[in-house]
Amino acid sequence: MVSTAGRARGTREAILDAAERLFAEHGVGEVSNRRISEAAGQGNHFAVGYHFGTKADLVRAIVHRYTAALEERRLRLLEEIGGSGDLRDWVSCLVRPATEHLDALGPASRRAQCMAQITTVPALRQIVIDESAGTPSMRATLDGMLRLLPGLPEQVRQERAGLCRLLLVHALAERERALNEGDPAARTTWDATATGLVDALTGLWLAPSTASPGGGSPQG
Amino acid sequence: MVSTAGRARGTREAILDAAERLFAEHGVGEVSNRRISEAAGQGNHFAVGYHFGTKADLVRAIVHRYTAALEERRLRLLEEIGGSGDLRDWVSCLVRPATEHLDALGPASRRAQCMAQITTVPALRQIVIDESAGTPSMRATLDGMLRLLPGLPEQVRQERAGLCRLLLVHALAERERALNEGDPAARTTWDATATGLVDALTGLWLAPSTASPGGGSPQG
Repeated sequence: MVSTAGRARGTREAILDAAERLFAEHGVGEVSNRRISEAAGQGNHFAVGYHFGTKADLVRAIVHRYTAALEERRLRLLEEIGGSGDLRDWVSCLVRPATEHLDALGPASRRAQCMAQITTVPALRQIVIDESAGTPSMRATLDGMLRLLPGLPEQVRQERAGLCRLLLVHALAERERALNEGDPAARTTWDATATGLVDALTGLWLAPSTASPGGGSPQG
Repeated sequence: MVSTAGRARGTREAILDAAERLFAEHGVGEVSNRRISEAAGQGNHFAVGYHFGTKADLVRAIVHRYTAALEERRLRLLEEIGGSGDLRDWVSCLVRPATEHLDALGPASRRAQCMAQITTVPALRQIVIDESAGTPSMRATLDGMLRLLPGLPEQVRQERAGLCRLLLVHALAERERALNEGDPAARTTWDATATGLVDALTGLWLAPSTASPGGGSPQG
């Protein structure tokens, strides 16, 4: 027999799954709470409001479910690499928790695409940053990375962190979409995808900065 | 007096502008041709169909208008750098035509966001690739880059080209969105944005590849 608490948990998960799929396919702004309730098999059109509150609260719950799964994997990876002096190891801690999680979800997942959609809505992007950048594992990872990049000016660090996040979010979403569509671009494994991303992002972080201190460009 | 041909050109431009804005804000799949006709101030709801054909034809016209503007700037840049041996110069030919064009369009532009939206639709992404990757200036730029990266395996070249395109498309869209919103993240200039992107992408291209030839990962 399923308890009342168990049923509520099941309903919440069904709503999160339905919202993730609808947001991934249509964009967060285009999907009403009513449509999500229906897609989650809820006779009550106010099920989303009842279980989550506003749409921003629902988005926060979606982001939290994702980042909590990544957090566990990242803490394990951090333990493995210890105080490594190889930047690749730290960049792996950014990339592999996500690729391993998406690998475990399988080829029908819309999770990475949903995350990409959420980050394109200015009002919601802060939720992703609040939920992900501030976790203990992310702070430890960024600290470990930046210890190995002492010469990078603060402004460039922030710029690279933004580019790194952007590339990761959209590369994962694009590969997930290719898997959904049976596209030949997804012929490699998530593990090989991770290796390629870690290589490329390590290069991105190690690149010398030619920006002048004022934020202008020496190339004029 | 405006000629009939001049009026048709004006109508076509108005439709492209309206479609660009609506696609950027709502996603390509969420906007009907009828809604675009209305937003372009056309009393006739079939104006999009009359002037462009299908939605894919309309998307092709949007992409073509963008890439044609970039093509001109890129050919000029290529002439300036000649046979440069500095990878940064070639990466600049990927980045600066777009940042200069967006700079000229001003802070209300939705063009970069529209391009990002188009590339997230698998059925439309090929249009972007057809219209952009095959132009004379892009072929010359990629040839120039790859001459300076002789050791990179073909599979890794393709992977990096994909990541480079992805980062460029979404970084430009994110900055354009920040400008629209008056976000402090857009406090730097398009020129400084270009410098940061050229630095980061040069690092991405120069990064050593650790992938095994079979596409697996040595960290597997």
